[in-house]
Amino acid sequence: MARLKEDSKHKTNSSIVMTSRIRLARNIAGRRFANAATREALEEVFDSCAKVLSGLRKFRDGELYRINDLSEFDRTMLFEDRSISKELLEGGAGRGVYVSKDGSASAMINEEDHLRIQVISKGQNLPAIWRSINALDDAVEKSIEYAYSPEYGYLTACPTNVGTGIRVSLMMHLPALVFSNQMEKVIRGVNQIGMVVRGANGEGSESHGAVFQISNQQTLGMSEDEIIKRITKYGKLISQFETNARLKMLEDKPVFLHDKFARAAAILKSCKLIDTAEALTYLSHLRLAADMGLMDGGAEFIGELDALMTTVLPSHLQLEEGVYDASPEMRDTLRAQLLNERAAKFPALKLNRR
Amino acid sequence: MARLKEDSKHKTNSSIVMTSRIRLARNIAGRRFANAATREALEEVFDSCAKVLSGLRKFRDGELYRINDLSEFDRTMLFEDRSISKELLEGGAGRGVYVSKDGSASAMINEEDHLRIQVISKGQNLPAIWRSINALDDAVEKSIEYAYSPEYGYLTACPTNVGTGIRVSLMMHLPALVFSNQMEKVIRGVNQIGMVVRGANGEGSESHGAVFQISNQQTLGMSEDEIIKRITKYGKLISQFETNARLKMLEDKPVFLHDKFARAAAILKSCKLIDTAEALTYLSHLRLAADMGLMDGGAEFIGELDALMTTVLPSHLQLEEGVYDASPEMRDTLRAQLLNERAAKFPALKLNRR
Repeated sequence: MARLKEDSKHKTNSSIVMTSRIRLARNIAGRRFANAATREALEEVFDSCAKVLSGLRKFRDGELYRINDLSEFDRTMLFEDRSISKELLEGGAGRGVYVSKDGSASAMINEEDHLRIQVISKGQNLPAIWRSINALDDAVEKSIEYAYSPEYGYLTACPTNVGTGIRVSLMMHLPALVFSNQMEKVIRGVNQIGMVVRGANGEGSESHGAVFQISNQQTLGMSEDEIIKRITKYGKLISQFETNARLKMLEDKPVFLHDKFARAAAILKSCKLIDTAEALTYLSHLRLAADMGLMDGGAEFIGELDALMTTVLPSHLQLEEGVYDASPEMRDTLRAQLLNERAAKFPALKLNRR
Repeated sequence: MARLKEDSKHKTNSSIVMTSRIRLARNIAGRRFANAATREALEEVFDSCAKVLSGLRKFRDGELYRINDLSEFDRTMLFEDRSISKELLEGGAGRGVYVSKDGSASAMINEEDHLRIQVISKGQNLPAIWRSINALDDAVEKSIEYAYSPEYGYLTACPTNVGTGIRVSLMMHLPALVFSNQMEKVIRGVNQIGMVVRGANGEGSESHGAVFQISNQQTLGMSEDEIIKRITKYGKLISQFETNARLKMLEDKPVFLHDKFARAAAILKSCKLIDTAEALTYLSHLRLAADMGLMDGGAEFIGELDALMTTVLPSHLQLEEGVYDASPEMRDTLRAQLLNERAAKFPALKLNRR
């Protein structure tokens, strides 16, 4: 399989790209797709995939989960970690996931396809991710014959994935484009060139905290290399739009921005109840402030905010607080307490020193 | 004219009733109503009313304004002080207002009627206001013959005011009824008994900061005494509903209330831009906290909040800050600065000592 040439000029230090991800959709030759298979057939696929994955170096000391054996809480943890999709979250016989020890790689079994392998990394790191997932894919292929057509490429349960079976995505933080009402324009533009913008949790999900996932729509008729290059290129372009929007807002409406930042810090410090969406919104505002140099702490503080954007999600929050059966209202209280404590230690805003 | 018996048990110390007001609609016998008069006739009415008013003790050292001589800024000041109505704010030849030195009494000339005399006072103080306005009315009547029909009573430009020409109103702070979605029910109930609930600025105005004006609809077929007694009675009843709603919320959803209070204090301290409606909302939340004993400072602090609820209005704000031509956005900045300074000195919230 063609290797993507390492292209260090595509790697950027900007924190606008929060994470990069590649996933491959694969099916076993000679077996029915998961949506048409009997329960026994699903179990056989599960067992053979699990066996192969357990032998791979990437999954050494990882965890294999049968989704139906997991509590609602544990499933939601995996979903919030982005190790499983919304579809797998809902359960089903013969379905599960292998998660690597560090959480950076996972392989869903019998989701839409027999295997959906993904690798995630912080920042814009697509070349390294491609090397890693390509190696994983090659390793699996040594033991499993994939459903493959010389004419079409990899065969998948849904026609949209046929060909390379690849989805390359960048999770991007675009608050200034949201503030300046430019996201709709960006989404339209991206759609026109065969890519797609979604909320942080993939298809059908809403964007919270101005986090958007940019990924390829097309999997057929382009090589993996070309798809990655395209996403890289348009990711850079959107980052540039976001940067321009930030500079323009700081120039044209500094008080509007300062107001957003000051309120976000004050509310996170003071609220007594806060739901997930609102918490993500204010963390997003402070992430923008930090990224614009209006809060000290640099990359480390941005990393803390990114971690908090996961910690405030329902299951992670309960794990953090040691409470596993909290009602939504109780969670809103716990979330407020957690954020009050953390926000009290955030670096001060530097709003009057332009 | 019948005097309302002083009824001290109707006077309450609760700060739920913010102000009481009575206004009388009067017209000069033998003259066309203002809406049908020539400009010359309006000027004659203006001059004769102004002359009579200037001789009254209540208006000694007061100010007479011809509305068309005033700047937009000055008109708005009078409107924000509730000395003139929205209709008079819009100007017009031969129209104006006499305002007493302490601002508690005013008499609009050639608004809808030739004369609209009003007296305002803090708290539930209708008996004293009635004595005061009744004396004013009697004094005017010594020099002006009112349009009066033995069958109908005082004749007015709009049929809804014929009879007593009286409007008795209580400005009430009802945040717990708003929080618990009970205001619609209260408004329906009040309408059924011939009274009306409006926003703070009268007919057609919205309620900001959970401030509502409860007043009589009916002016015909009831004596002034009866109307005042009714408003007093239903004012007490609505105060009781509000008090019950407060106790119930504190019992059932203390964290919901604490969250509102903590956010209000934090935002007033930290915001960099804030419009009038939002400022009134947060001041209203803190007024509730203070009234529920969750902020120290007692009646004095509530008085400070009430004053601030006027100071944040566009013209008062500009007077306070010494800027008279601020754009709406500039005003939002000035308002934030003013509130940041004041809120920094507010008493602390006592949220964890129930």
